[in-house]
Amino acid sequence: MPDSKSNLSRTLNPSTVVVVGDKRMNGYMWLNNMRDFTGKLYSVQVDPAEISGIEELGVRNYTSLAEVPGEIDYVLCAVPRTIAPRIIADCAARHVGGVALFTSGFAETGEEEGVRLQSELGEIARRAGLALIGPNCMGLYNAKLGVRQAGEQPTGEAGPVGFISQSGTHAINFSLTGAAQGVRISASISIGNAEVLDVADYVDYLAADSDTQVIAMYVEGTKDGRRLLRSLRRAAEAKPVVIWKGGVTEAGARATASHTASLATSNDVWNAVVRQAGAIATESLDETIDVLKALLRCKPATGLGMGLLAMTGGQSVVITDAFVRAGLDVPLLTDASYAELAGFFNVIGGSYKNPLDIGGTIGFGGQHEQLQRLLDILEADANVDAIAMELASGFLARRWQADPASLDPLLDLLVAHQDRSAKPLVTILHPGHLEEVTAKARARVVERGLAVFPSFERAARALSSAIAYWRSRAAAEA
Amino acid sequence: MPDSKSNLSRTLNPSTVVVVGDKRMNGYMWLNNMRDFTGKLYSVQVDPAEISGIEELGVRNYTSLAEVPGEIDYVLCAVPRTIAPRIIADCAARHVGGVALFTSGFAETGEEEGVRLQSELGEIARRAGLALIGPNCMGLYNAKLGVRQAGEQPTGEAGPVGFISQSGTHAINFSLTGAAQGVRISASISIGNAEVLDVADYVDYLAADSDTQVIAMYVEGTKDGRRLLRSLRRAAEAKPVVIWKGGVTEAGARATASHTASLATSNDVWNAVVRQAGAIATESLDETIDVLKALLRCKPATGLGMGLLAMTGGQSVVITDAFVRAGLDVPLLTDASYAELAGFFNVIGGSYKNPLDIGGTIGFGGQHEQLQRLLDILEADANVDAIAMELASGFLARRWQADPASLDPLLDLLVAHQDRSAKPLVTILHPGHLEEVTAKARARVVERGLAVFPSFERAARALSSAIAYWRSRAAAEA
Repeated sequence: MPDSKSNLSRTLNPSTVVVVGDKRMNGYMWLNNMRDFTGKLYSVQVDPAEISGIEELGVRNYTSLAEVPGEIDYVLCAVPRTIAPRIIADCAARHVGGVALFTSGFAETGEEEGVRLQSELGEIARRAGLALIGPNCMGLYNAKLGVRQAGEQPTGEAGPVGFISQSGTHAINFSLTGAAQGVRISASISIGNAEVLDVADYVDYLAADSDTQVIAMYVEGTKDGRRLLRSLRRAAEAKPVVIWKGGVTEAGARATASHTASLATSNDVWNAVVRQAGAIATESLDETIDVLKALLRCKPATGLGMGLLAMTGGQSVVITDAFVRAGLDVPLLTDASYAELAGFFNVIGGSYKNPLDIGGTIGFGGQHEQLQRLLDILEADANVDAIAMELASGFLARRWQADPASLDPLLDLLVAHQDRSAKPLVTILHPGHLEEVTAKARARVVERGLAVFPSFERAARALSSAIAYWRSRAAAEA
Repeated sequence: MPDSKSNLSRTLNPSTVVVVGDKRMNGYMWLNNMRDFTGKLYSVQVDPAEISGIEELGVRNYTSLAEVPGEIDYVLCAVPRTIAPRIIADCAARHVGGVALFTSGFAETGEEEGVRLQSELGEIARRAGLALIGPNCMGLYNAKLGVRQAGEQPTGEAGPVGFISQSGTHAINFSLTGAAQGVRISASISIGNAEVLDVADYVDYLAADSDTQVIAMYVEGTKDGRRLLRSLRRAAEAKPVVIWKGGVTEAGARATASHTASLATSNDVWNAVVRQAGAIATESLDETIDVLKALLRCKPATGLGMGLLAMTGGQSVVITDAFVRAGLDVPLLTDASYAELAGFFNVIGGSYKNPLDIGGTIGFGGQHEQLQRLLDILEADANVDAIAMELASGFLARRWQADPASLDPLLDLLVAHQDRSAKPLVTILHPGHLEEVTAKARARVVERGLAVFPSFERAARALSSAIAYWRSRAAAEA
C-alpha cells in the first residue's frame, strides 16, 4: 500500500478531483478554482440549498464520497472542522490519493479542541497512507492540469519553479506576482499546518520532479529540522533552492504560532540550515521573485565584476553604490576597452569609465549602434563578469506611452545580445511617476525573456544572491 | 553690493527670467520649461536660424543680454562651454541676480581646459556677487512661480520640501516621483559642479525659507565639510534634514568624480557628519521619498511599539518580520485590549494577538465597524506607539478595478482616525500582479493625505527612520 508521501505525486497530478463542502457563501470558490481542470471534476455536498447552485455550474454533485464513480486522486475539503475527521475517514475508505484541507480552526488556534481534532485527522490519514495536505491550507496548484488555489492563477504550460508555502496568501501572491514578472510555476503546494506531510516531503517531491528546475519556498517551521536539512541538501545538489523564512524574529515567531502552529526556530539555526544546505535565503515575496528571475533568466557567472550602463551621470553614481552595497564590484575596464571606447564614445557631459553613460546612445530614432558597441566591449572585457543596464528614463517612458512598439528595437538588440552572451544581463526599469506606463513597458520586457527589476537595489541584491549561489556550486564541483 | 549667496533668494524668486542659447535641436527645452512662468520671460539667442522658432513660442528674443529691458533676476544659460565665460561676464555687467549654467564640459571632464574654464566662470561670478548655480546643472524649480527644471514638473501651490541635488536627473526624478506620492516641493536646486555656491549655501537658504518645512538633498561631495556640518546642524535644529549621499563606495566616488568633479569623502566621515548634524541618512531616491512621506504625513512618535493590522495569517507573519528587522518592536497588547477584543473579534482562522488579522473586517459591503473598533483599541493601548495597516489584498484591488469609489468608505474611516489619533499611521498597498490597478488606488490614498508604501519593508524602514529622528529631537529638547 502506498504511504502518504508516495501518494503525493498522484495527488499533484490528478485525473479526478472532488471538492467537498463548497458553498454559495464563498461564491463556490473551489469549484470555480477547478473550472479549467483537464480531468473529471465532482462535488460532494449534502445541503440541498447548495446543490442547485453547484449543478448550475455544470458540476455533478453527490451526497457522499462513496457514491463518486471511479478512482479519486485529489479531494479538496472545505467542510466545518468538526466534520473534517469524518470526511478524511471517507477518503481513506475510498483509497483517495490525497486530500487538502482548506478547513481551519485546528492547532493554529492554540485551543485544546483544535489541537485534538488535527491529531485525529492526522492519525486517520497516516494509517490509510493518505497524502494529507494542511489542514488550514489552500491546497495544490498544477497549471498544466488546471488544478488551482485561486481562480486567477494562470493555466497552461508548466513553468520551471516548484513552490512550497506555509501560507496560502503567499502561495497565491507568489504565483500571481511571479507570473506577471515571468516567474512561472511547475507545482505549488500550500502546506498549512503540515500535520502529515511536512516541508521535507514536499522538497523531496520537487527535487525529483522533472518539470521543476528551481525550488522556492515560504517556510515558517518544521517538526523535524534534521530531516529537512537532509532533504534540502539533497535537493540543492540537483537544482537551486530558494528559502524565504517567515517568523525569523521573536515577534514573528509568535505570529507563526497563531498562523500555522509552527514551532519557533531561532534565526541563527535557520541561517545555518540554509547555509549548510547550499540554499539561497530571501526575506520577502519580492526578493524571492527577484532572485528566481536572476537564476532563471541570466547566464550563470561566478565573478563579481559588474559592467554598468546608466542613462545619466547621476544614475551612474547611484547604480554603482547599489551594486557595491550588494557585495559586487564595479572595476575599471581593461585598457583595450578604453582604447576602443575613445574611438567613438562622447566624453563631454558623460562618464565613460564604468558605469558607461548611455543617455546619448538610445532613445530617439531607434538608432542603437553605439549601444551595440558598448555591449560588445563589455562582453569582451575580462574585468566584467556581469552586465546591468538602466532601461529607461522619463522620456523613454513617455515615448512608450505614445507608441509601445517603439521599445521593440531596443529589446531586439538586448535579446540578441543575451542569446550570444556568456555573461548575466539584468535590466532596470524604475516606475518613477509613470507607474502605469512602466508597468506596461515592463510586461513587454518580461515577455522577451529578459530579467527586469524596478530598482537598482533590487537588481543588485538579486544578482548578488544568484552569483553567490553559482560561485558556491562551482566551488562544490571543483 | 549683495554677494553670490545673498543673491540666491532673488534668483529663486524671480520676476524676470532670461534663457540664453536655447535651441530647436533640444526642442527649445528651457523656454518650454518656463512656459508657465508667472513673471516676464525673455530669450537671448544670436543665431538667426533659431530666432524664428523662439518667436513662434511667443517669447521675445534679443541678441544680447544688454538689450533685455529692466532688471533680470534669473538667467538660464545653455550656450557652448567656450562661450559661457562671456555670458557670465554679461550677467555681471547687467547686475543679474543669479545664473544657472546648464552647460557642461567643465571640471567633471577631468580635462585641463574644462577645469580652467570653470574656475574662470567662478572668478567672474564671485567678483560680481552673482549667484552662480552649476555649471553642469538643471537650474531651479519654484512651483509657485512656474520656474522649472523640466516641463513635466507641476506648478501651482508650493509644497513643504526644499530639495538640493548634485544631480539634475535626481532633482527631476525626485520632483516627479515625489509629487506622484504626495511629496511636493517648495524650492529645488540642481547644483551641478557647485563652483561658487556650495551645498552649505543652499542649506542655509532653505533653513531660513518659510515655505520649506523639511530639507532633503542628494549630495555627492562638498569643498568644505566643516562649513557644511555647521550649516546642517543649524538647519536640523529648525526642521528635519534628510541626506541621500551618492558615491559612498570607492567605485561610486569614482563615478561622482566624472559626474560633478566631487572629491571623494569616505563613508565613515559622511556618516559622522549626518549623525553629528542630527540629520536622517537615506540610500536611494525611493527611500528618500519614503522617509519624507513618514515625516510629513504621520503624527510624530518616540516609542518603538508597533500595532499591526494585516489581511491574512501569512501577511501577519511577514509584516511582523519587516517591522522588527527595521528596528521596531511588535509587543503584545495590554490585557485590557485583549479583554475588549475577546468580546467581538473572531479568533477562528485568524490571529488576534498583534498583528491583528483584519481580513474578515473589511472589504465586502463597506462595513467597517470592526476595523473602527480595532483602531480604537490600538489607539488606546499603552504598548502601541504607532500603527501599520495592510490596505489591500487581491480581492480588494479587483473591486477597485471595477469601482474605484468602493475604496472611499475605508479611506474616510482611516482619514477620520488619523485626524483624531496621536499615533503615526502608515499603510501598505503592494502592487502584486495588479500594478496598474494598485497605482490608481494608491493615488487615491495619496490624495487623502495618508502615508502609503508599496511594501512592508519600505514602510517599516521609513517609519523607523522617522521615529529615530523624532526620538533624537525629543532627547535634544529634554
